[in-house]
Amino acid sequence: MLDAAAVSEFAAGERLAAQLLFLSEVDKLKGVLRRSQLMDGSRYENSAEHSWHIALAAWLLADTADEAVDVARVMQMLLIHDIVEIDAGDTFAYDATRRTDQAAREAAAAARLFGLLPADQAATLHGLWCEFEARTTPEARFAHAVDRLLPVLHNFATQGGSWRANGVHRGMVVQRVGAIADGSARLWAVIERLLDEAVRRGYLAPVPASE
Amino acid sequence: MLDAAAVSEFAAGERLAAQLLFLSEVDKLKGVLRRSQLMDGSRYENSAEHSWHIALAAWLLADTADEAVDVARVMQMLLIHDIVEIDAGDTFAYDATRRTDQAAREAAAAARLFGLLPADQAATLHGLWCEFEARTTPEARFAHAVDRLLPVLHNFATQGGSWRANGVHRGMVVQRVGAIADGSARLWAVIERLLDEAVRRGYLAPVPASE
Repeated sequence: MLDAAAVSEFAAGERLAAQLLFLSEVDKLKGVLRRSQLMDGSRYENSAEHSWHIALAAWLLADTADEAVDVARVMQMLLIHDIVEIDAGDTFAYDATRRTDQAAREAAAAARLFGLLPADQAATLHGLWCEFEARTTPEARFAHAVDRLLPVLHNFATQGGSWRANGVHRGMVVQRVGAIADGSARLWAVIERLLDEAVRRGYLAPVPASE
Repeated sequence: MLDAAAVSEFAAGERLAAQLLFLSEVDKLKGVLRRSQLMDGSRYENSAEHSWHIALAAWLLADTADEAVDVARVMQMLLIHDIVEIDAGDTFAYDATRRTDQAAREAAAAARLFGLLPADQAATLHGLWCEFEARTTPEARFAHAVDRLLPVLHNFATQGGSWRANGVHRGMVVQRVGAIADGSARLWAVIERLLDEAVRRGYLAPVPASE
């Protein structure tokens, strides 16, 4: 990693030194592994490359959003939304135990990590992260939709991937990714058909008869 | 990977099917390895996570650009600038042999990969990629500056990383990353001091006396 002493030697002033240290710190996101595999099934995906993928996806799919969105703002949200995982870890969507304290762990992480930046940028990024979490703006709702969309495509592409590995059935997926419907009815319609096809192919278990 | 037959079954219409197939195809960028290591030295970096890192860096460092830039446009350029490597591979900065046909290989890759998108988006992304390569706009010059900046930080953070592994000296680095100066005099001043410090610490060989 870059150390603060070295950076202060070559960075011109405190602002640039803080920015370069932040960029060094967030390099750790490349080492945070998710439960989804790459689409070729070769390994698990990390949160940095996932963030790249969904920022690109949000740009290309912006015209499917239910409400008009500021595309740049959605992309920025998605580039930073997972940075808190550097401290808080990736919490598996279907891990009920760890999800109970997830919000507190992530809030502390956001304060520390965005706090490394110069004050104006710390406020901007922290604000965008809070907006993403609160889902009260069209941008945040669409950003969530895209963030939930990609893992479903990955699981389909890997013939069930983390669904099969973790005994997940169709009802659990709908509960988890139903937020797609809050950002884009068109993308949600695609996902419902995809899930039907996944059940038909045996990639995903149907909802158990008892539920 | 997602296959076209499946996608056409659940995607609503040709536009969305083309977009989802493109997003599936570019997942391969996560498997294209660069010569630079992660800042903790644990493994080599891939081009997808690198693209995430520089899009974020361009946003945060935009006020160091020599000319005013459209930040969203720079971020979009950086999110797609390496996609051609899926077909053309990553060409090491100091590999003179492979660099001779790099332009032709990458142009063919751009035509095929961006051509997977609906025509309007294919034209937009291909145009942005050409703009990045041509470096004739403030956005393209600043995007190049940031793209060249991060590997230098990575090499410093890993105590010489790919410099030492490949016998690279300070003059070769300056020739390779001098493009930083075309986009940001402030960032270039930082890099010159960083390279001095890298030589002082033994991370980077000085320019040989014979040159």
